[in-house]
Amino acid sequence: MKLWDKGFTINDKIEKFTVGKDRLLDGYLAKHDVIASKAQANMLAKVGLITNQENEALQSTLDEILVLIEKDDFNIDDNFEDIHSKIEAYLIEKTGDAGKKIHVARSRNDQVLVAIQLFEKEYLKDINKKLLNLIDILLLKADQYKDALLPGYTHFQAAMPSSFGMWFSAYAESLLTDLYFFEAAYKIADQNPLGSGAGFGTSFPIDRLQTTQEMGFSEVLVSSVGAQMLRGKTEKSVATALAMICGTLSKMSYDLVLYNSQDLAFVKLPNEMTTGSSIMPHKKNPDVFELTRAHCNRIQALPNDIMLTINNLPSGYHRDYQILKEILFEPMMQFENILDILTFAIPQLEIKSGYMEQTKYDPIYTVENINDAIKNGTPFRDAYREVGLSVENGNYVPHKEFKTSHVGSIHNLRLDLIQNKIENFKLDSSICK
Amino acid sequence: MKLWDKGFTINDKIEKFTVGKDRLLDGYLAKHDVIASKAQANMLAKVGLITNQENEALQSTLDEILVLIEKDDFNIDDNFEDIHSKIEAYLIEKTGDAGKKIHVARSRNDQVLVAIQLFEKEYLKDINKKLLNLIDILLLKADQYKDALLPGYTHFQAAMPSSFGMWFSAYAESLLTDLYFFEAAYKIADQNPLGSGAGFGTSFPIDRLQTTQEMGFSEVLVSSVGAQMLRGKTEKSVATALAMICGTLSKMSYDLVLYNSQDLAFVKLPNEMTTGSSIMPHKKNPDVFELTRAHCNRIQALPNDIMLTINNLPSGYHRDYQILKEILFEPMMQFENILDILTFAIPQLEIKSGYMEQTKYDPIYTVENINDAIKNGTPFRDAYREVGLSVENGNYVPHKEFKTSHVGSIHNLRLDLIQNKIENFKLDSSICK
Amino acid sequence: MKLWDKGFTINDKIEKFTVGKDRLLDGYLAKHDVIASKAQANMLAKVGLITNQENEALQSTLDEILVLIEKDDFNIDDNFEDIHSKIEAYLIEKTGDAGKKIHVARSRNDQVLVAIQLFEKEYLKDINKKLLNLIDILLLKADQYKDALLPGYTHFQAAMPSSFGMWFSAYAESLLTDLYFFEAAYKIADQNPLGSGAGFGTSFPIDRLQTTQEMGFSEVLVSSVGAQMLRGKTEKSVATALAMICGTLSKMSYDLVLYNSQDLAFVKLPNEMTTGSSIMPHKKNPDVFELTRAHCNRIQALPNDIMLTINNLPSGYHRDYQILKEILFEPMMQFENILDILTFAIPQLEIKSGYMEQTKYDPIYTVENINDAIKNGTPFRDAYREVGLSVENGNYVPHKEFKTSHVGSIHNLRLDLIQNKIENFKLDSSICK
Amino acid sequence: MKLWDKGFTINDKIEKFTVGKDRLLDGYLAKHDVIASKAQANMLAKVGLITNQENEALQSTLDEILVLIEKDDFNIDDNFEDIHSKIEAYLIEKTGDAGKKIHVARSRNDQVLVAIQLFEKEYLKDINKKLLNLIDILLLKADQYKDALLPGYTHFQAAMPSSFGMWFSAYAESLLTDLYFFEAAYKIADQNPLGSGAGFGTSFPIDRLQTTQEMGFSEVLVSSVGAQMLRGKTEKSVATALAMICGTLSKMSYDLVLYNSQDLAFVKLPNEMTTGSSIMPHKKNPDVFELTRAHCNRIQALPNDIMLTINNLPSGYHRDYQILKEILFEPMMQFENILDILTFAIPQLEIKSGYMEQTKYDPIYTVENINDAIKNGTPFRDAYREVGLSVENGNYVPHKEFKTSHVGSIHNLRLDLIQNKIENFKLDSSICK
Repeated sequence: MKLWDKGFTINDKIEKFTVGKDRLLDGYLAKHDVIASKAQANMLAKVGLITNQENEALQSTLDEILVLIEKDDFNIDDNFEDIHSKIEAYLIEKTGDAGKKIHVARSRNDQVLVAIQLFEKEYLKDINKKLLNLIDILLLKADQYKDALLPGYTHFQAAMPSSFGMWFSAYAESLLTDLYFFEAAYKIADQNPLGSGAGFGTSFPIDRLQTTQEMGFSEVLVSSVGAQMLRGKTEKSVATALAMICGTLSKMSYDLVLYNSQDLAFVKLPNEMTTGSSIMPHKKNPDVFELTRAHCNRIQALPNDIMLTINNLPSGYHRDYQILKEILFEPMMQFENILDILTFAIPQLEIKSGYMEQTKYDPIYTVENINDAIKNGTPFRDAYREVGLSVENGNYVPHKEFKTSHVGSIHNLRLDLIQNKIENFKLDSSICK
Repeated sequence: MKLWDKGFTINDKIEKFTVGKDRLLDGYLAKHDVIASKAQANMLAKVGLITNQENEALQSTLDEILVLIEKDDFNIDDNFEDIHSKIEAYLIEKTGDAGKKIHVARSRNDQVLVAIQLFEKEYLKDINKKLLNLIDILLLKADQYKDALLPGYTHFQAAMPSSFGMWFSAYAESLLTDLYFFEAAYKIADQNPLGSGAGFGTSFPIDRLQTTQEMGFSEVLVSSVGAQMLRGKTEKSVATALAMICGTLSKMSYDLVLYNSQDLAFVKLPNEMTTGSSIMPHKKNPDVFELTRAHCNRIQALPNDIMLTINNLPSGYHRDYQILKEILFEPMMQFENILDILTFAIPQLEIKSGYMEQTKYDPIYTVENINDAIKNGTPFRDAYREVGLSVENGNYVPHKEFKTSHVGSIHNLRLDLIQNKIENFKLDSSICK
Repeated sequence: MKLWDKGFTINDKIEKFTVGKDRLLDGYLAKHDVIASKAQANMLAKVGLITNQENEALQSTLDEILVLIEKDDFNIDDNFEDIHSKIEAYLIEKTGDAGKKIHVARSRNDQVLVAIQLFEKEYLKDINKKLLNLIDILLLKADQYKDALLPGYTHFQAAMPSSFGMWFSAYAESLLTDLYFFEAAYKIADQNPLGSGAGFGTSFPIDRLQTTQEMGFSEVLVSSVGAQMLRGKTEKSVATALAMICGTLSKMSYDLVLYNSQDLAFVKLPNEMTTGSSIMPHKKNPDVFELTRAHCNRIQALPNDIMLTINNLPSGYHRDYQILKEILFEPMMQFENILDILTFAIPQLEIKSGYMEQTKYDPIYTVENINDAIKNGTPFRDAYREVGLSVENGNYVPHKEFKTSHVGSIHNLRLDLIQNKIENFKLDSSICK
Repeated sequence: MKLWDKGFTINDKIEKFTVGKDRLLDGYLAKHDVIASKAQANMLAKVGLITNQENEALQSTLDEILVLIEKDDFNIDDNFEDIHSKIEAYLIEKTGDAGKKIHVARSRNDQVLVAIQLFEKEYLKDINKKLLNLIDILLLKADQYKDALLPGYTHFQAAMPSSFGMWFSAYAESLLTDLYFFEAAYKIADQNPLGSGAGFGTSFPIDRLQTTQEMGFSEVLVSSVGAQMLRGKTEKSVATALAMICGTLSKMSYDLVLYNSQDLAFVKLPNEMTTGSSIMPHKKNPDVFELTRAHCNRIQALPNDIMLTINNLPSGYHRDYQILKEILFEPMMQFENILDILTFAIPQLEIKSGYMEQTKYDPIYTVENINDAIKNGTPFRDAYREVGLSVENGNYVPHKEFKTSHVGSIHNLRLDLIQNKIENFKLDSSICK
C-alpha cells in the first residue's frame, strides 16, 4: 500500500530501488511518528476537521501501536514502503474513515521531518547526559592522577613537564566546549515543522501552535517553505555536533594508543582490554582505542557526506533527502556505542611509573633552568641562549624541582573552575532542561 | 631575527618553506597580538615579573605599534619570520631589557593562539551583525512581496502554490537557525588561552584571570594542555559556523539562478548586475549569484580541509597548525565579501508578473480541488483518487481560489513570530552582547 | 576461537566492539580467502614447509569450503571473530596438523589484504564490463535521437541549439574518460601482497612469485613494508574510481530530473518508473533519477571518508583499517545497483517533441544570426553588437536554419570516433584483458 | 574591455566580485592561451575563415606576446577582466580586423578549457619527472641503508624486525603505484576541447582534428557537449592524482617526524633543517616534515573542495567553474614546492645506530623464536603459545639471528624488481612519452 497509489503499478526493480533501506531505518522513527500523529489528531479534532469520536478512535489505536513498538512487535511488511504507510494502513484497518482522515492537512514531507526532529531531540538529550558523565569521569581521573607527571610533547618532541592531571582535565574541558555545538544542534531539532505540509502549507485552518506545544517543541518553524528547508540541515546539524565531539575523542584515543606503545609506555591497559596478533605472541594491542579513533574519524566525515548529497539542490523537497537516514542513523548508534566503550574503559586505565626518570627526558626541564636563571636576574633571551648552549655541549644539568601556581598548571589544576563551567552550561543550555 | 635563534643558520630553502605565507597572513593578527601583549605586560607588572617602569615603556611602545598598524605602516620585513618576532624586536629596539622580558612566561604557542581567538571574536561579532542585517532585509522583502505567488516545487516538479513572502521569510528564518552555530563558535573563541605557554603552563606565578578580564574574554581555558588543544578546534569552529550559513546562502543563490532562467522567469536582475557571453549577444547571465553560490560551496568544504590537516595528530602543538591560517583567513574575508554583495543585490531583485497564468502550472492547484471536496464531505483518500483521475484524463479544472490561515502560510506569514525569534536570539546569545 | 588466543579472556563488551561488523562483511571476502589459501598451501608444499600429503588434504578441504560458500552455506558462527579464523578452524577440524600449518609464514595482515585485492579485482572487472555496456546504450540512444534538437544551456540560461545526439554521446564519452581511473585502480588491485606477513616479511623461504602467478596477479608488491602500505590505499583507489564515475552519472541524473520538469519538459519517463505524492495527485516524480543522483553523490564522498579515517597514521598496520570494509563494501554493492537501474531505465527514456517551437527559446539562435552576418562580410565583433541590439530592442528574428559540419557537432556527431576510443581502451587497458 | 560588452555598464562592486582573482590566476594560462590561439588562427586560415595574410599578422603578433610573457612583461591591466580579453585586445590593436576575427567559431568556454588542458598537461609531465627522480632517490637510500635494521610497528607497537632498506623501497614502490593515477589524469588532460564553443559547437566549418594535431593532443573530445563537461572534471582529475601522491608523502613525513622524536630516535636531521622553540632551547623541531605533511594533507582535501563546488550542477557551463582556478592552481604550485623540498631533504637524512640494542625492542624477535621452533618440528599454533607464555612469564630470550630470503624481505630487497616496474611504467604510459 502506498500513500500515493494512482492505479498503475510501479516497476518492481524501480520500487525495490526507491524503497531502499526505509523499512529498516524507519524503525528509529516509528515511536516518533506515532507521537506526532497523536498531536496531529488532537489538533484536527480541536479545529473541527475530525470529530471527537474519530479522534478518540485514533488516539487509542495510536496508543496501541506505541505498545506494539515498545514490544518490538510492529514490523513493516513488504507491502508497505515505509513506517508512515504502515501506520496509516493500521489506523484505517482499525478505525475506518477516521484513519482515512488523519493525513488531512499533512504531507509525508512534514510527517517525516517532524518524526526526525523528535528522534534527534531525544537522541541529543540522551547523548548529552552520557557526555556529561564522561566529563565527570575524566575530572575524577584528573584528580586521581594529579601528581603523575608526564612528558609534554610539541612537534612529537618531549618538550616540558606535563601531568596526567592536566591531560585528563584537558579532555574534560575540551569536550565541554564541544557541547556548545550540541546545544546548537539541539536548538535546531527543537523546532516544529508539522503543518508545513509539502513545504507550502495548507488551506485547512490547522493550529500549528497547538501541535508545537503538545509535542514539547520550544518553537514553531514559521515559514512553511523554511520548514521544508530544514530537511538536510537538521541532519547536518546533528552530524556536525557529533563530528566536533569525535574530533576530541579521536585525539584522546590517539594519545592513549601512543602512550601504550613500548616507546612511551605511560599507561597500561588491563589484559582483557587488549587483543593479540595472529603471528606475534608478545603483542597486546590497544585495538579498543584504535577503533574508537577510527569510528570517531569516520563520523567526522559525516557532515561532508551529507553536504555532498544535498548541496546544490534548490529549495523544495527532493527524494535525495531520503538517503540521509541511511547516512546518519547508523553512525548515530555507533557513536553511542563509542561513548559506552570509553565510559567503560577510561576508569580502568592505569598510569605506569618510573618513565620520567629516563635520561631521554632530561631536556624537558630546560625551561625550568631558564626560569631559575631569570629569577636570578638574567634577562630571558640571554638565559635561553645559555641553557641552549649547555644542551648543545652536553653539559646540561636538568633543574627538576619546580612549582607552578597559576590557574590550570600542574600544581594548581583548578578543577573547580572547570566544574563551574559545567554547572553554567547545565543552567544556561536548553538541552539540559 | 628568530625567537629561537641558537647560533647555527637554517638552510635558506628550508626557511622559505617553513615561513610560508606567515608574513602575509599575520597581518590579520597584528593588532590582536599587540592587545594581548599589553595585557601580558600589565599582568607581568602586577605579579612583579617586570617593574612598573618597564611596563610603562612596553605599554607606550605597544600603543605606538597599534597606531602604525592602524596606518598600515607596520610591515614584516624579510628578516622576521612572523609578526610576533617583529613586534618583540621592535619592543627590544625601543625599550631594551623590558622588551626582552615581555616573553617571560609566554610561549609563541599561547601567543599565537590568543591572537587568533581575539581575531575570531571580533570577526564573528562583525559578521553576526551583518547577518542580522541581511535577515532584516529578507523580512522586508517578504513583506513587500507577500502577495506575489510562486509555484512551489518538489522533485523539481511544480507542486503547489507558494509565495515570495514564504520564500523570503524562509531564508530569513533559516539563516537565524544557522546563527545558533555562530553562537557556539563565538563561545569557543571567547575563552582565554594566554598563560598556557607551550601547552604545559609555566612555573612563573602569572595571573591568568587578570589577562582574561583585561582582554574581555568571558572565560579562561583552565587546563594548559586543554588550551593548546584549542588550536585547530577554534579554527574548525569558525569554519563550521561559516559552512552552516553558506549552506543556506548557496541554496538561496541557486534558487535565484533558476528563477532567472527563461524557463521559470520569476525574477529579474537589473542589467548592471548581469554579465554577458563572448559569443551569444542575448545572454544576461546571473554570474553574481553563481559566484555567491560557488564561493559558499567552497567555504562549506573548509571544515573538512581543516579536519584532514589536523586529524590524527595527538595532543600537543605540531607545526601543521600553522597552515590553518592559510586555509581559513582568506575565505573568512571572502565570506564577508559575499555578505556585502548579497546585501547589495537582494534589495534590487524584482519579481516579475504573469508567470502564474501559464497552463503548465494549472496542476499545482490539485490539492485545493481535494481540500474543496473534503470540505464537501469526501474522505481525503477518495478525493485524492478522483482528482488524480481528472488530471490523468485531461478534464481537470484547477481550483485557483483558496485562502490559508495557519501560521507560516501564504496568507498568514506571521513575520512577527520570526521577528520574536530574532529578538530572543539577541537577548540570549553572548555574541550579541 | 581466535588466531591470537593467549589464555586470558577478552572482556565481552570490548570483544563485541572490536569484532564490529566483520562477521557480516567478511562474506564478501570468503571466496577470495579460500583462493589465496589454496595458493598459499601449494606454495608451502613446493618450498617444503608442508608435505604434499598435507597440501592435498588442505586443497580438497578448501575446495569443499568453496562449494559451501557457493551454496551460501558457510556462515561465521558467533565464536569466530572473522572469516579467516573460521576457515582456519574448519581446516584444523578436517585436516588436523595440516590445518595448523597453513598460517605458517603468513599473517592475518597479508591474508586479509590479498583477499581484498582479489575481491576488488573481480569487482572492478565486472563493473568495467557493465560500464562499457552502459556506454554502448548511450551511443545507441545518441544515434536514435541524433535529429532531436534541445536548447543548450549555459548559466542555466537557454543559450544555443544543442541536440540529444550530442547529449547522449557526451555522457558516453565522459564515462569513457572516467574509465582511465578505473584502469588505475585495477592496476593497483592487480598486485600481490601475499608473503609480506605483518608488513615485515618472514624468515621462511617462501616463494612469492609462485603465489603471484597462481592467483593471476600481474605483479608482486615487492617491499614487504610497501605491501602493508597498500592497506587503505587500495580501498581508496577503488573509492576514487567509483567517485569519478559517480560524478558523471550524478550529472546525467540531474539533467534528467530537470528535463522531466513541467518547465523544460524535454523527456518523458514511463508511468511505471515514476512515483507519486501523498497529497498531490498530479505528481509523477522522477524519484528513480533523484535516487541515482543521491547515491552517486554519497559515493563521491567515499574517498574523503577513507582519507579522514586513515590519514596521519604512520606506516605499519593499525586496527583502524578494519572499518574500511564497513565504509567501502556496501557502497560498492549499491553502485552496482545504480548501474543496473540506469541500464534498465535509460533505454526506456522517450524524448518529447514540440518544445523547441516555444518563443522563449528564440534567442538561442542569435549565434546563427551572427554567423550569417559574418559570412556576408561583417566582422565578428560588429555582428555581435548588432544582433545584441536587435534582441534588446525586441525586433530580433531568429535565424533557425543552420547546418554544422565539424567533428562532434549537431549534424556530424562522429560516433565512430568515440567508438574508436572505446576500442583503443579495450585494447590498451589491463582491466579489459 | 569585455568580450561581451553590450552598451550598459556593470556595477563596480559586482564587477570586482565577478572578476575575482582572474587577473592573478590567468598568469598560469597566458602562454597556453597563446599556443591555442596560434592553432586556432592557422586552422581558420586553412578552412578559409580568415585570409593567409590575416593569419600571418596574427601569428607574428602572437609570437610577440609569447616573448613578452616569457619576459614576464605581459600584464593584465585593470581594464581587462581576464587574460583572454587582454590578448584579443592586443591582437586587435596590432592587427586590426584580423584580431577581430580570431574569436570566430570559438567561445570563451572552449578557449579557457583548452588553455587549462595545455597547462595541466605540461604540469603533469614536469611533476611526473620530478616524482620519478624522487623514486630514484628513495631506491638509492634503500640500497645505502639496506643493512640498517628498524623495529617494525603494528598498532604503534614494536612488532617485528624491519629495515630502512624495506622502508625506503616501500615508499618508492608506493609512489610508483600513485603514478597510475597520474597517468589517468594525464590522459584526461591530453584531449582537445577546442572547437566545442560554448559547449554546443558552431556552424562554421572548422577543422578540429587539425588543431588537435597542431597542439599535440592525443585525442579530440568529440561531443561538443562532452567537451564542456570536462570543465570541472579535468581539474578534479589533477587534484585526485595529486591527492594520491600526497597520501603517500604525508605518511612518509609522519614516519620521519616520529623517527626523529627522542622516544624512537632512529633518524637525525642536519641542524640546518630543524627549527627551534621560542622558550625551550633544547628543541630541534622537524618542522620541515611537519609542513610537508600538513601541505600534503591539505592537498588531499582538494578533490572534495572541487566536488562540493561543482557537484549537482547540470550539464552546461556555470560561472561556478571560474573559481576552480582559485582552488587548484596555487596548491599545484605548492605541491611542486613540497617535491623540491623532499628531493632536497631526503638525501641528507642520516640513520642513527644503536637503537636496536634497547631491551624494549627484544620482543620483536618472538616470530623468529616461533619460526625456529617450527623448523624443529613444533606446529605453528603450539609454538605460538609457548613463546607467548615465555614473554608473559618474563623468561623470554630473543632469537636475534635470522635470515630472510623471499622477494621483498630484509635480506633480499629485490630493488631490481621495483626498477623493472619503473621501466615498464616509462614504456607503457603516455605521460612518459
